[in-house]
Amino acid sequence: MAPFERHIFVCCNQRPPDHPRGSCDPGGTEALQKAFKKALAERGLKRRVRANKAGCLDQCEHGPTVVVYPDVVWYGRVTEADVAEIVDSHIAGGVPVARLRLADECINTASCPHRPKRNSE
Amino acid sequence: MAPFERHIFVCCNQRPPDHPRGSCDPGGTEALQKAFKKALAERGLKRRVRANKAGCLDQCEHGPTVVVYPDVVWYGRVTEADVAEIVDSHIAGGVPVARLRLADECINTASCPHRPKRNSE
Repeated sequence: MAPFERHIFVCCNQRPPDHPRGSCDPGGTEALQKAFKKALAERGLKRRVRANKAGCLDQCEHGPTVVVYPDVVWYGRVTEADVAEIVDSHIAGGVPVARLRLADECINTASCPHRPKRNSE
Repeated sequence: MAPFERHIFVCCNQRPPDHPRGSCDPGGTEALQKAFKKALAERGLKRRVRANKAGCLDQCEHGPTVVVYPDVVWYGRVTEADVAEIVDSHIAGGVPVARLRLADECINTASCPHRPKRNSE
């Protein structure tokens, strides 16, 4: 077989509850990654697309964060309720879910419109 | 900033010592990921390229496994001694390290020339 058609990396990073950067997976349950895995399996996509656990993807303030390669599509604030839409629209249909995408200018930046200011809240 | 120019995922999966599929990181030290991180920092590539911890990449028999996106270049049997060459040649220079690459026909397959036969050794 060939490499995965798409490879979904789901941040499962867990930090202490009072950490200023927060946690994508505060409970350490890996529930979001499992939800992607289940959704792929239900649609017969399991062999062609992998939902992978990932360590910190370094976009913590927009988390829970998910990145899809080789598309280079970043999603932020992803919940289990969003998984079916991402899999159906983007993974199966090729159309990324616009409302969840991180803009390029929000990635790898110290400040952006969606990132809360530190020490002020 | 823009998304990472390259995103290196290093399998840090640890299984029990007697597991038939083995472990990419049997000691759970994450030493290979740390070596990539250090090599990137030393070359001033830290902000543009990320060395990420990953859960099981499912190419266990070829591990330790590393995949570089968006290039979709898979490496197998990677050791700390290979890190400088991968970073210098591929990440900085754009030329993947041929001797460590997994062939497409070795990825997501039940058998290939490099995968040991089970129950026979």
